[in-house]
Amino acid sequence: MSLTNASPLDAAQAAKSASHILATLPASARNDALTAIHTGLAAARDDILAANARDLELARAAAADGRLSQSLVSRLDLGKAGKWDDMLKGILDVRDLPDPVGRVTLRTRLDHGLDLERVSCPIGVLLIIFEARPEVIANIASLAVKSGNAAILKGGKESTESFVAISRAISAALETTRVPNGAIQLVTTRDVIPELLAQDRYIDLVIPRGSNELVRYIKSNTKIPVLGHADGICSMFLEHTADPQMAADVIVDSKTSYPAACNSLETLLVEQSALTTILPRVAEALAAKGVELRCDPKSKAALQDFNLSATIVDAVPSDYDTEFLGLTLAVKTVADLDEAVQHINAHGSKHTDAILTSSKELAEQFMSSVDAAGVYWNASTRFADGMRYGFGTEVGISTNKIHSRGPVGLEGLMIYKYKIRGAGHVTAVYGEGEGKKRFLHESVPL
Amino acid sequence: MSLTNASPLDAAQAAKSASHILATLPASARNDALTAIHTGLAAARDDILAANARDLELARAAAADGRLSQSLVSRLDLGKAGKWDDMLKGILDVRDLPDPVGRVTLRTRLDHGLDLERVSCPIGVLLIIFEARPEVIANIASLAVKSGNAAILKGGKESTESFVAISRAISAALETTRVPNGAIQLVTTRDVIPELLAQDRYIDLVIPRGSNELVRYIKSNTKIPVLGHADGICSMFLEHTADPQMAADVIVDSKTSYPAACNSLETLLVEQSALTTILPRVAEALAAKGVELRCDPKSKAALQDFNLSATIVDAVPSDYDTEFLGLTLAVKTVADLDEAVQHINAHGSKHTDAILTSSKELAEQFMSSVDAAGVYWNASTRFADGMRYGFGTEVGISTNKIHSRGPVGLEGLMIYKYKIRGAGHVTAVYGEGEGKKRFLHESVPL
Repeated sequence: MSLTNASPLDAAQAAKSASHILATLPASARNDALTAIHTGLAAARDDILAANARDLELARAAAADGRLSQSLVSRLDLGKAGKWDDMLKGILDVRDLPDPVGRVTLRTRLDHGLDLERVSCPIGVLLIIFEARPEVIANIASLAVKSGNAAILKGGKESTESFVAISRAISAALETTRVPNGAIQLVTTRDVIPELLAQDRYIDLVIPRGSNELVRYIKSNTKIPVLGHADGICSMFLEHTADPQMAADVIVDSKTSYPAACNSLETLLVEQSALTTILPRVAEALAAKGVELRCDPKSKAALQDFNLSATIVDAVPSDYDTEFLGLTLAVKTVADLDEAVQHINAHGSKHTDAILTSSKELAEQFMSSVDAAGVYWNASTRFADGMRYGFGTEVGISTNKIHSRGPVGLEGLMIYKYKIRGAGHVTAVYGEGEGKKRFLHESVPL
Repeated sequence: MSLTNASPLDAAQAAKSASHILATLPASARNDALTAIHTGLAAARDDILAANARDLELARAAAADGRLSQSLVSRLDLGKAGKWDDMLKGILDVRDLPDPVGRVTLRTRLDHGLDLERVSCPIGVLLIIFEARPEVIANIASLAVKSGNAAILKGGKESTESFVAISRAISAALETTRVPNGAIQLVTTRDVIPELLAQDRYIDLVIPRGSNELVRYIKSNTKIPVLGHADGICSMFLEHTADPQMAADVIVDSKTSYPAACNSLETLLVEQSALTTILPRVAEALAAKGVELRCDPKSKAALQDFNLSATIVDAVPSDYDTEFLGLTLAVKTVADLDEAVQHINAHGSKHTDAILTSSKELAEQFMSSVDAAGVYWNASTRFADGMRYGFGTEVGISTNKIHSRGPVGLEGLMIYKYKIRGAGHVTAVYGEGEGKKRFLHESVPL
């Protein structure tokens, strides 16, 4: 890893050259580099935490003056319980995943002695633009090295001291490995984002991690493909055969376990015939968590006898196109599954949408009809997460659909979607701490 | 299929609605629609060929005045031997391919009763913008229906009468099927391309089929992802252990079997130690086919005793960044494989590049190091084609690299490349006619 004051053009060219070497390294060389990064960061713990403390001090002062949000200060803190250890463990988790490079996914004999293979290979050079959280640098560096991609990292200025300390440790560690120095670069010069976004000749993919505004700005200002999503407007359809307690549990988890997350619930679509049978219990559970409900007239009427007036507000049309990122939920009545699907396909953000029902048939119909990267049955939208999916970690969640290379026939016209079939599972019960459930992450034969 | 004078916005909205229905139809319904299209076109043969004759008459007049190229007139002619039958056969070939929708490509048990699946599904709405060839409409409609994608087609104005006749037949055929009318739309109003390119809310993917200028214009004028390639600068590296006769055969096929194609050879990189041993035989074979060689000083010197002066021109630097699309080949001397790879990665278009060598080790190194959608060993670059790959047909050849959706971990950072291992195979010997070789297209266990 190099900490560079090079121009964006020079950084991008160096990354491209490094990517060509990285793409040919065997898995053992890439894994050795991850071991070295882990060892190097562990040894530099005190230096890095001291640098992080200096960032935090400035950030706290800025927050006291109202120039910075308290939540940003909180995301900045590498000393928070478990954060440092999780960061280090993540590096080894990624190292121990199967090698994604060189997988043969199609093999066709075209003629005697003439064989065609489709083989996985790295994309090339990634540009990752992110805001505060300093541990992201270790996640991204791990995924990039393991997958044989070079990466240029541009972090938010609030974390500069932390980034520099981490990057020094990673750089020293990589010196002892076969991964070239230019493969992971940290750009710290100011105001370089527009210039980086212009390097479409050398950079293959931009991955923004941050606010919707950051993502939108990037999408509108580069010819390079952007992987990610701007909005996360996730919807849940409450069908009348849903189990009421399961519905309350799943909806509460989807809305309240981390309201600022992109996979949190923003819109609840209630089947007309569930308005009086299931919605009240759900609404009471949400109210107990302090959630404000923005209701259409029918759902408001269904709740009028339940002493919930303090938490109910009349919905306006824009509520159904809003990512609240807080304890607010838009509620709308729909006649049936078809209307729910139409609403989601028109107003959703193609991120993650779910159905609560006891009917397998309706669940399958919902999952086929909704156009989204994740479509779930009886499970919380918050399962949309690389760690929860068993991917070790993630570089981001993509609502992109395009994925083809070489001659494109039928297969190149396809993309995948993720389906989950649960029984009321919620995310909040999973974790590493005491009393928490662990994921199985078992592979199941296709 | 509807033949529409609707506004681009209305057409895009109708296609999006249709795509949501199409995505849920079973394979049998999509296959029945393809059978109906085949039957309908066969029955309308005389009408369509008469319409095509009217297009041809206008085009020939325009060509006589110099307002249109002769090659465009030739591409327009549906009556050319075999073209009509190939078009009809292509529809049934696509119908008979395995269903690409609903394939499970990952299945993970996250917890007891909580299973994750990754399933293939259609992209949504495709916009295909193409120039003359009227048979493309049948290819595209077949691939779209089979893959469950809606499609908006905008053809070149020279083929208007043919398109209208074909689209009427397809439209009548689809009336009897479960595929909704808006699923395939032909837009015939003029000057609608900029407005169509602005419908990024409804259109998921643009596929331009035509000149480099058309593709570049589209890439610079839309936020919708574009599938395809602008340039096709394919290179071949002639290593000194290559078999000289094989080298001559493969290079002649790559350069001359269809010089205007994107998968034709544009640059020949000659290893220094092959200059006097192999290059002369290759150059003589190319000269016999009328190919002009744009040589660097070393390759020119190597050929000076071979009476080739009429076909040799001094290369200028821009020749190594040019898609000649005709009987011209840039020739450059390189020290070794590393220099060849560096040249290709810097000057190629990431389409298809090949090595001629008898060393398996060097071939594998080349195929790992070159960043392109196709990397071949001892085979013609012209194998880069959907039909030749066994895909039935193709919507285009993509040099895109991006393909991810949902939480993106390692696998989402990968893309595939196509490798071919041959023994001097050339494309010109394959075909449907008498004396031609047939492809085997056998599936081989991974």
